[in-house]
This record gives sequence, structure tokens and C-alpha cells, in this order.
Amino acid sequence: MAYDIDPWQLRWSGLDLDALKRTESTFALSNGHLGMRGTLEEGEPRGLPGTYLNGFYEEHPLPYAEAGYGYPEAGQTVVNVTDGKIIRLLVQDEPLDMRYGRAVDHHRVLDFRTGTLRRVSEWESPTGRRVRVRTERLVSFSQRAVAAIRYEVEPLDGPLQLVAQSDLLANEPIARRSSDPRVAAALSAPLRAEFSAAEDYRAVLVHQTRRSNLRMAAAMDHELECAGEGLRVDIHVEEDLARLTAAVDVAEGQCLVLTKYLSYGWSARRSAPALRAQVDAALSGALQTGWDGLLAEQRAFLDEFWASADIELDGDPELQQAVRFALFHVLQAGARGESRAIPAKGLTGPGYDGHAFWDTETFVLPVLTYTIPEAARDALRWRHSTVDFARDRAKALNLGGVVFPWRSINGAECSAYWPAGTAAFHVNADIADAVLRYLNATDDEEFAAEHGAELLVETARLWISLGHHDVHGGFRIDGVTGPDEYSAVVDNNVYTNLMAERNLRAAANICTRRPDLAALLGVSDDERDGWLAAAATMVLPYDAMLDVHPQSERFTEHAEWDFAGTPPEKYPLLLHYPYFDLYRRQVIKQADLVLAMHLRGDAFTDAQKARNFAYCEARTVRDSSLSACTQAVVAAEVGHLELAFDYLAEAAFTDLHDLHDNVENGLHIASLAGAWSAVVAGFGGMRDHDGRLAFAPRLPPGLTRIAFRMCYRASQFCVEITADGATYRLITGPDLPTAHHGDPITLTAADPITLPIPPAPGHPAPTQPPGRAPTPRRPAG
Amino acid sequence: MAYDIDPWQLRWSGLDLDALKRTESTFALSNGHLGMRGTLEEGEPRGLPGTYLNGFYEEHPLPYAEAGYGYPEAGQTVVNVTDGKIIRLLVQDEPLDMRYGRAVDHHRVLDFRTGTLRRVSEWESPTGRRVRVRTERLVSFSQRAVAAIRYEVEPLDGPLQLVAQSDLLANEPIARRSSDPRVAAALSAPLRAEFSAAEDYRAVLVHQTRRSNLRMAAAMDHELECAGEGLRVDIHVEEDLARLTAAVDVAEGQCLVLTKYLSYGWSARRSAPALRAQVDAALSGALQTGWDGLLAEQRAFLDEFWASADIELDGDPELQQAVRFALFHVLQAGARGESRAIPAKGLTGPGYDGHAFWDTETFVLPVLTYTIPEAARDALRWRHSTVDFARDRAKALNLGGVVFPWRSINGAECSAYWPAGTAAFHVNADIADAVLRYLNATDDEEFAAEHGAELLVETARLWISLGHHDVHGGFRIDGVTGPDEYSAVVDNNVYTNLMAERNLRAAANICTRRPDLAALLGVSDDERDGWLAAAATMVLPYDAMLDVHPQSERFTEHAEWDFAGTPPEKYPLLLHYPYFDLYRRQVIKQADLVLAMHLRGDAFTDAQKARNFAYCEARTVRDSSLSACTQAVVAAEVGHLELAFDYLAEAAFTDLHDLHDNVENGLHIASLAGAWSAVVAGFGGMRDHDGRLAFAPRLPPGLTRIAFRMCYRASQFCVEITADGATYRLITGPDLPTAHHGDPITLTAADPITLPIPPAPGHPAPTQPPGRAPTPRRPAG
Repeated sequence: MAYDIDPWQLRWSGLDLDALKRTESTFALSNGHLGMRGTLEEGEPRGLPGTYLNGFYEEHPLPYAEAGYGYPEAGQTVVNVTDGKIIRLLVQDEPLDMRYGRAVDHHRVLDFRTGTLRRVSEWESPTGRRVRVRTERLVSFSQRAVAAIRYEVEPLDGPLQLVAQSDLLANEPIARRSSDPRVAAALSAPLRAEFSAAEDYRAVLVHQTRRSNLRMAAAMDHELECAGEGLRVDIHVEEDLARLTAAVDVAEGQCLVLTKYLSYGWSARRSAPALRAQVDAALSGALQTGWDGLLAEQRAFLDEFWASADIELDGDPELQQAVRFALFHVLQAGARGESRAIPAKGLTGPGYDGHAFWDTETFVLPVLTYTIPEAARDALRWRHSTVDFARDRAKALNLGGVVFPWRSINGAECSAYWPAGTAAFHVNADIADAVLRYLNATDDEEFAAEHGAELLVETARLWISLGHHDVHGGFRIDGVTGPDEYSAVVDNNVYTNLMAERNLRAAANICTRRPDLAALLGVSDDERDGWLAAAATMVLPYDAMLDVHPQSERFTEHAEWDFAGTPPEKYPLLLHYPYFDLYRRQVIKQADLVLAMHLRGDAFTDAQKARNFAYCEARTVRDSSLSACTQAVVAAEVGHLELAFDYLAEAAFTDLHDLHDNVENGLHIASLAGAWSAVVAGFGGMRDHDGRLAFAPRLPPGLTRIAFRMCYRASQFCVEITADGATYRLITGPDLPTAHHGDPITLTAADPITLPIPPAPGHPAPTQPPGRAPTPRRPAG
Repeated sequence: MAYDIDPWQLRWSGLDLDALKRTESTFALSNGHLGMRGTLEEGEPRGLPGTYLNGFYEEHPLPYAEAGYGYPEAGQTVVNVTDGKIIRLLVQDEPLDMRYGRAVDHHRVLDFRTGTLRRVSEWESPTGRRVRVRTERLVSFSQRAVAAIRYEVEPLDGPLQLVAQSDLLANEPIARRSSDPRVAAALSAPLRAEFSAAEDYRAVLVHQTRRSNLRMAAAMDHELECAGEGLRVDIHVEEDLARLTAAVDVAEGQCLVLTKYLSYGWSARRSAPALRAQVDAALSGALQTGWDGLLAEQRAFLDEFWASADIELDGDPELQQAVRFALFHVLQAGARGESRAIPAKGLTGPGYDGHAFWDTETFVLPVLTYTIPEAARDALRWRHSTVDFARDRAKALNLGGVVFPWRSINGAECSAYWPAGTAAFHVNADIADAVLRYLNATDDEEFAAEHGAELLVETARLWISLGHHDVHGGFRIDGVTGPDEYSAVVDNNVYTNLMAERNLRAAANICTRRPDLAALLGVSDDERDGWLAAAATMVLPYDAMLDVHPQSERFTEHAEWDFAGTPPEKYPLLLHYPYFDLYRRQVIKQADLVLAMHLRGDAFTDAQKARNFAYCEARTVRDSSLSACTQAVVAAEVGHLELAFDYLAEAAFTDLHDLHDNVENGLHIASLAGAWSAVVAGFGGMRDHDGRLAFAPRLPPGLTRIAFRMCYRASQFCVEITADGATYRLITGPDLPTAHHGDPITLTAADPITLPIPPAPGHPAPTQPPGRAPTPRRPAG
């Protein structure tokens, strides 16, 4: 399968079930609060149905054959909530089903500017009756509880009786996904019916989960335009089903047009009547706006987004499409989450149980911070809202401050394998880093006072309790797991230590700058000085013989992986080799030291970066989708522009080319966000250490022009990179000081600044393990 | 509760249920093949019933909330098989139940010389009827399938109708022990009835486990001596129950005497008729031998054991009793296992699911090797019989040679937490060490050819694949877990590396000495030279600043544990702190480096031993029962004789004083075996490096005399330690060269050799973490 190439759309005309599963993810619509997979309206054929409400989950016990102290006991899994996407059609006496009859024409289009999913199916039934179905669907950015579907059917050769059935369906049967019978049981029919009602064209279903006791409501209303005769409409409701049925005779050239408005709400506290009222009100708002009004709002929201966030890549149309696809889905994942997490899969599928990880802060929030900073703020507010969970977790673990979860929906730790969960304490520094980036990029003092300072201070407290000053005075952080999941429970992971150092300094700085907040948070001068002392003496291992930083202490002394003896089908390694074997060797799943060189580039010399990068490249297998983007950024910095371009492509095509063979479970939002980083931080050379924005643009051989837009504080600006030089243009806002390849410049409302680009450093090309080099990107044309 | 002190018996007169649970373990009878807990004949009150057949287990799935490659999928749990111990009694119309009425006299005695458990209960029923019940029970050392019970009832004041019911009872209900519903389900009624029959005084039940498909048979026969009138005997059989009922009127001063003979058998292959025939034949043999004959055989077996294995401790009668108790139970665990494992709990309880660990080779086999070497040989034959499992496991783990399981019943790995299971590769060197010890102590060339060489060679192959030569040429073994379970997945654990070094050399030596075996096992000269090269360059970390060996690389740089802030109720630490916190700190669960200094004492100088010991002592909490004995051995060597005595007492009293509060689940066989090591290797200073037997005796202040017996090759000898010196006496066999405090001596059939004892080294007393010093042993009198 392949998508048609178009700069602003994703278009696909296939129908086979395997491909369908994948397009259900790529065609998913979401506003960060409500998500719907791109299933066909008639429900079948399908891979996985999927309607998700951010934060709405069911609980289940986590089983351990050998349990240990502090192991989380309850898991959380995102719930496929009441499905409102379904509109079935009977054509005369035959159900519309794309598996039968013949598709004369069939295609679907995800439109990045209208924010809608459109479908056209010209279908001939097994007995030869032909209809054209046109649908358009949106999950509203402007009205976050609302989705809507326009459904249009036209008989193509002669009059037909059409019966349309529009459903709300709870507890849809789905294929069992877990081998644990208790998890499967928890999720086979997770919703207990509480209330249902229907009247005229409107219906509502209220349900509650069995164990987590979360309550949700879904409602639908309809408008019918019909040029046919003898229209008969019924509405029917059961516990798990509400159905509007419209039957009508339609002549050739005429249409049945059904507009379905949906609204959703959930709460852990509100009563069933209150939730019902909430979804009813949202529906009334949607009806009052109307279909055209919703479309217009959607378009306006996206126009604004693209004005501040668009990336243009000239010379590779497919990559252009992929990068806009990536930005569109990052926006969908984060736009209206509003104090809920941004899960690793967004709201596009059930992968990773719907959990949020460090992906959010490290990969997704940089994009949002520099494009729609309110969304970054809201995601950090979610973290802040879970601080009590994190404080309890720290206490349970005998630690100070907070310990944020490795994976969670509601903020409680759900990771059942501690060496790759609890031990990955870097998530706390990642959160602090995101807070710091947001504060630097926005000067949002209200956020600093209400959320930011506490997040910085409490995470700093964690590091003080987790690390210790050794006999030489150095501050060590032992027994933790860094980003690379093929090493675990190591001492002095460079990434973790450098991010903790930044965390400690940032906490000290905000306490110095805002003594009022320091007092409120109980930070004494002694405590603050302790953070600075730990930061100043942070241990950074270095292998003097090899002249590189070991990823963690002793890493470079470990055995090499036998890459030559590892056939391609043995990747990803974690499915074919035991952890102990991966952990004790120099094999890297994903950027770890390289990520440190991106985010803490200020801690390395240029020469170190080049040597470290080459050392890591030779041992990195990229079994994680979180790797290529970071490798692109640092490859570009050290001058390997073709390699950086290949990695950008890998990040951008992760889901469109289904590189990890699992897109059916949802998109890799962090990898998609990484495509932005690969362009902006990679070829744009954007860095933001200590709040100083700087650029070092370079054009890769595969492109003729790059242009990207960003906002920083009150300024919006554009950077354009061509073979001849880089042009900086302030679009709105005050003058903005920044730097071009190390030279200070200031963007002003006057003419754009165009500057030449110095030649890239000329290091020898690094090598990757056999078979693990990225696919070379050779753009067509 | 307390036991009465006696040099050759364990006697106890209590009845409360809590104490009963504990005595069911301490009073357990076993011959290594068949084990019976010390429950009262009438079945209740009881803690846990328990009849076990070595190697007979049920399988159950191992659950993982997050599974990983190579995780074992099936667990194994020892099964409580058909209970033949039960003999119930109706006294007139009242059931004998020690919870009701009044025990005028009640005591039980485990006799270390007769090998029987005796009971006397003089009981007054609630309505005032009095009887005296005398029982004696044995599990035969000479007829391994057989157990027998002599049951005698005497009315004490007037004639009584007595009804005795003698049962075989399968699928006894037991309290749920696992929180995993699947494990609980697998074990709630694990036996499926296959066959049952009864005739005259004899009955047989045949059952099969539901998942592991192992088949077992239990049979009983009876002799009745009765001076009463109107004896009426019935036999009755159901699927899960066979019952002989004897009703009779007995006059005061007369007795009902019931002798019950039991036989057991199991097999994975034999049919139900074959197994039935097997147990019938064993019963006939037992009846032919008769009760007195069985008693005589039992006594003879034990006389021989004590002649070659007894330890005398003058000056501390309670410790004398405890050490004989320990030896008796070690014998019971290993005597007639015959190619089955020696589980950590022997056959005394369901603890650790009935699994065998490295305990067997490292703690139990040294005792057996030097007292009844055939039992050591048989246990190693069990390991050898599982070599195909171990080879498959190595392949699955991408390793060479064999990987023996961390815990298992049938040889397949059952450990569900790999950092403390699979990663503890030292078990393989421990097996090799036990093979080497057995070969050196016996010159058993037949064993060498059939089992020993293969075990040494295949384990050596493991180390070559697991370690690697680093850039400096050193042979490193990274990412493994040593004996101390409060550190995991570390590099160059001193214990592991030293034991692997011995393993590699031993494999090379046997191949050099026996080229025929080398050829058979496919060992080339190059392969053998590779083993020697790895052994010669084995990395041994050393902390030059502190002048001690770190337990593993970087251990001494880790943070110290906050012992001052750890209250007593937080021990054992693993129940109150997460693994990651334990792993990253200098806190030691159990002897690790100290065990290396015992078993590989040839690799350390005296000064290093003293410094290392002091360093470890200050950080060792002894949350494992496998620690005190080793600390005793090395404390004695470096001259801390009082401390060594305290540790000996701790090892010896582990179960009698229930120091770990879990004796109800079974005895700590390795700790009991460790009491032998504490005496023989500790105060006797016995070492056997490279097959050279040597002694360095010293008497601790708490004792006036120690004497112990051993066998070595064809010689049996005795070592006696007093304040004045040490006396070596050859009992039988050829001259035996050995050493006394470094000086070569030869024991001959001529006069014993008496030599003076040099003063102990005068190192300052080490300290333990606050509250973790052993209880000072102040013998009464």
C-alpha cells in the first residue's frame, strides 16, 4: 500500500483489511481530549475500533510470579469507550459492506488544513445496485467535547430504498490483546450501563467502569436532509446501544444527507445526571454552531496553527507530506488535552495501554512549546496535577521529593518491570527540562508560581536523595536506567547526570529569583546551596583511553555485541535475546549519550560530540522509534548531513511506512514530533540552552530549501535555509536576539537577515552496525 | 516454647497451634525420597499437613505483567501427596482431639539415633475418659519407599470401646499460600484419581497430577495386635480416600496396637498398574521385614552415619543438641534422594515451592562429601541428569555450554525474576566446585567419566561465552549477580570470577589428565588453552584507596546504607525497601566476598582476608539464612573466635529458635549444613583447595572441647580440639597426608598426633550494622 503524495493531504484508496488496520491509526482524528480511529462508518471491515477519552481508563491487577517491595499492584488500560462513529447503511435489502460487491471508486483523505477525514465510496452491491457514499468527519478543536459526521448517500442508477442506522455502541467486542486472563477480563466489557435515554433524533448513554469507577457519557443528535419520499425515522435505546434509524426511498440524482453530532464527557466525580447534562449541553452547542460552523472553526484553528508551525521542505514532496502529517498528529495529540497526559500513541490506538511516558516532555513538548505553547503548558499542568501520586511514590521508595511514573494514565506508576521503569529516574529531569524550556520560551510567571517552581524544586529534591557525594567529593547517581533500554541499573549515566545537573541548577535559580516561591516551598538557603554543590560536582565518566564519554560508567569496558552474527530477523533484539545479554554488552537500543549531546550540548566540546557520536553510531541499533530523530539532530551538528537526512526521513516515515510493524496499535507521536526536531534542531541547528535561542542552519543534499516557523516569547518568526544561506524573518512581535552559527544577531521588524552558512565540519562518515544503517533517502525527481 | 535439652534427642511437650506448625517441620521425617511432616497422627490440630515425594511436582503458569524474552513460562510446585500418616481414634463416642479435653501428659521426641519420632499422649476426654496413646514413626533409610507407624492405645481407667481409623487421604484441603489465583488453582486439588483398591488390611490409591502428568501411588497395610474383645475390621476405598477401621472393646491395662506400613512411588512414565505393583511390592517387603526389623535397619544406618559424621561439642549442651539435629536433618534431606535434587527445605515443608537452589552444591554437598559421599554423588548425578535442560537454556540465552537453573524441581528454570535468578550464573561454578570437591575426596573415576567431566567441561564453556577479554586483556564477567542478593547485575563479582576461574582450571585439568574424556566431549587443545588463558587473566577488582576487594566492581563507590535510620522492624530489608535502593548501596544481604574468602581462600592473603572481612562485616545484615555459617568460618580464620562462635550458634539455631520466623514452611537445610561448616571449616579450619586437605584448629572461648569425624578417600579420621592442642586420629583406612596450621602431617594407624595450637591473629574486633550483630552465645553452665 502507498498513500498518494500531496503537500496538505494524506490520501489512500486501498481496502484490504491488513492495510485498513494501519490507516485506522494514520487517519485517526483527535483533539487531545477525544480521539476516534479512522474506521469506516459502517463499522466493518475493521482492524480495531477505537474511541478514546483522554484519561479514561480501567484498572486491573498487575501479576507477578515473584513480587517485590514497591512493585505497583494496579495497572491501567485505556478503554475503548462508547462508539459514536458508526453509521450503517442498507441499500434496498443489502448491507453496505466493502468486502462484498465491488468498489468502483473508493478513497479516503485526511486533510491537514480542514482537519477532517473525507471518504468517497462508489459501491456496487452484489446484485448490481450502485450508490455513492460521501462522508466527512471531524473531532472539533474548538469544541473539545464534540465530534461530527456528515454522511451523504446518492443512488447512482435508479431509485433505491435506503435505511441508515446511526449508533452509539458501548462494550464493542474487540480481539483479546493480553495474554493475562485478568487483564483480558477487565477489558472485555469494561463499561457498566448506568443510564440511557432517547427522544426525537437525540440519545444519550451513561456508563461507569467496573474497577476504576470512572463515569462517561456519550450523546448523539442528528440532522436529516432528504430529498426522498416517505421518510420514516425511529430512535431506539438499550443499555449498551442507542440507534437512530432513517428509512427513505431516494431517486437517482437525489441524496440522503445525515449529519451526526456527537458529544462526550467523563468524570471521576460527577454524577450520571450531571454528566448527562454536560453532554446534552455540548450537543446543543454543536447544533447551534452547525456543521458548516464547525468546519469553519476547524479551519480557522488550523490556519492559525500552520501560520506559527509550518515546515516547508522543497525537493522531496513525500517527505514534505510526511512532516506535515507528523505536525498535524502532534497537534491532534496535544491541542486540547487540558490537564491530561499526552499518551505515547496520542488517542490513535490502544498501544502501550494508552500510557504516557517521558516521550511527552522530551519529544512532544519542545514542538508544542515553540508552536502552540498553551498546549505545552497544559501538558505540564497535568504532570503537576499528579504531584501527590509522585510524592507518595517517592515516600514508598524511601526517596525525597517526587518520583513521577515511568508509565501511567492517571499519574500512578503502572510499570511492572522496575529496571526499565522505576529505575529510569531521568523522567523526572525530563519533566524539569520541559518546565524550564517552557518558562524560558514564554516568561509565563503565573505558571512558574502555580506549577513550575514546585515541579523544579521537588524533582531537585529527588536527585539529592537519589545521588550521593562519593569519597572523592563527586556527586554520583548510581543504580539508575538511562534512556537506552538495552542498558539498565547503571552508575552515572551521562544523560541522567547532566539532566539532573540542569534540574538542580534550575531549581536553585528559580528559588534565587523568586524568594517568595522558595519560602512557599520550604526551600532554605542551605537546601538551595546543596543543589548547587551537587550540580557543581556531578560525576561525568570519561574513558581516557578511547577518548569518549561512556554512556554510563564502565560501558566502554563491556563486551561488544556480535553484530556480524546477528541476522536481520533477530531485530528488534529484545524479542530475541534476554535482557541480561543486552545489558552486559555495548549495544544501544536508542540515543542516550547522543540525546545528552543534543539536550545538554553545552556540556560537550565539538570534538567530543564528533567522537562520541561516531562511537555510539557503531553500536546503536535503533530498536526504539525514539532514536532516529535524535541521531538526525546530532548527525547534522557534527556535519553528517546526508546521514541526518536519512534519519529525519526515518523519523517522519515511522508510521506512514509502518517501520516498526505496529502502527495498527496507534501512531508513534514522539517519533512524529521528532521529525520536527530533526528539521528545526537538526538542519536548523536550533538550541535553547539556558534560554538562549540559537541557530546553526545547514541544508542537506536532498533538499533545495527548508523553511520553518516558530514562536518565542511574544515573537513569531521564520527561518529559511537554502544552498546560498539562511534568512531570518520576524513575522510578528518584538525584536528577538538570537545567534547564527555562534554569531549574535537580532531579528527586527525591518528587513529579514540573510547570512552565509559556514562549511560543515569534515569528520569521516560514521558507520552503523551491519544492516542497521538508515535507508538512504533519495527523493524522487 | 522450648525444646528439652538432650544430646541425642529433640523433645517437646507443647500443644499450641502456632508452636505445632513449627514442630511439624523440626519433627519431620525423611529419607531424601519420601518426607512426612511431624503432624499429629489424628490429623488435627495442625499447621500444614505435608507428605512429599522428591521430584514430584505440579506445574503452573508463571505470570508476568511485562514479560521478556527468555522468561520461564512454567513454574513448578511441590505437591502434598496422598497423606498416609493419619490414624484417627474414637474413644467411646469422643474423637481424640488434643484441643479438647485435657492432656495429662503429652510429649514428642525426635531420636537422632533410632531415626524415629515418638509420641506419648495421656489424654482425658471432655467427659473424663482417659487413654494413653503411644506412637512411633519412621521413614525408612533402608527401604526408601517405605514408612511405618506403630500406634498403641491403652485405656487408663476402665474398659473402653476404641475405634481406630487409618487413612490414605489425597487432595487434603490446605490453606491458600499464593496470591496468584492460577497457582492457587493448580494446587487446590492437584491430584486426579486414577485407580483405587482395597482388600483385607491393604489399600492402594493411584493419582496423576493435572498439568505435569506425573503419576504416584500410595499403599498401606496393617498389623493389628489386640487384647480386646469383638474386634471388627473394615476396609473402605473411594477415589481420594482409603480407610481401615478397627473397632474393639479394650479393658484397662490392655492395648490396641496398630502397625501401619506405608509405601509410595511415583513416575513420569510408568503406568498405573506398574506403579501399583511397585508400591504393593514395597509393602510386602516392609511386612516381611516387620516393625522390629525396620527399627533395627534404621538404627544400623544411623549408627554408621554417626560413626563417620558425629560432632561433639563439650561445654554447650544446647548447641551440641542443635548441631546433631542439624546433621540428622542434612542426612534426612540427602540420604536416599538418588538422582533427585536436594531441595532448600529438604522434604520438610512447602517453602520455596520445594525448589532446589545453589544451596545444595555450596552448603549441603560439602557435608555429605565428607560424611556419606555416596549421597553427594547421587545429588550431583541429579544435576547431570538435567544437563539437557541446562543445554537448552544456554541456547535460549545465546550462551555456550550449560546454564543450570536458579531454582527448579525437575531441572527446568522456574525463576521469574531474572536479576536474582538467571543472572546468578555462579550456580554453575558452584556445581563445578562440588564436582571437583567430590572427585578430590573420593577418586571416583567412574563418576568422573560418566558425569563429572561433562559437568566441568560444559560449565567451563558457559564462562567462556559469558565473559570476554577486555581491551587490557583481562577476562571480565559482566552483568551477573553474585551470592549477595542485595546487589544484582554487576560486573566482575569477585566470588563469581574466582569460582569461574577454578571451574575453568578444573575443566582444563581433567581434559589434560583424561584425554579420552576430552575427546569424547569434543574438547580440543585450543579450547582447553582458552580456558586456561581466561583463568590466568581473570579480572579481580581491587579498591586501592580502601585497600579492600570490592564485592563487585565499583561496589565500594556506592552510597552507604543508612543503618542508623533503619529501625529493627524494617528487617529483612527486602520486605521494606525497593530493589533499586538496595542494589545501589553498600548493603550486603549475605556473605558474598566472605564466601569467596572461604571457598577460594587460596586467592587472598591473610591481611586481605582480615581487612575484607572487617569491611563486609560492617555492611552485612544477614537477611539470608545462608550467611551466618560462612561468616563463622572466616571469622574463625581471621581470629575472631567469639564472633565465629556466635555465628555458629545462629546457623545451628536457625530452625530450633525459628530465627527467620518461617520454620513452619520447612527447615533451612543449607543453614543446618552450615553449622557443620562452621565447626569443621571454622573451628577445625578445614580447607580443601586443589584437593589438599588441611586443618587449622582453634577452640572458641565458649567450648571446652570439639571433636569431629570425617572421611576422605578411603580413610576415616577424627579431629579433637581442646585448649591444649589438637589431636588427629585415623580411625580406618590408609595413611592420610594433611596439614596442621600450615605444617604438613600424616595420619597413620599408629598413635594419634597431638599438636599445639598457635595463637590466633590479633585483629581488632569488627563491627556489624547497628542491631545486626549476632546474639552473643553464652552457654549455660
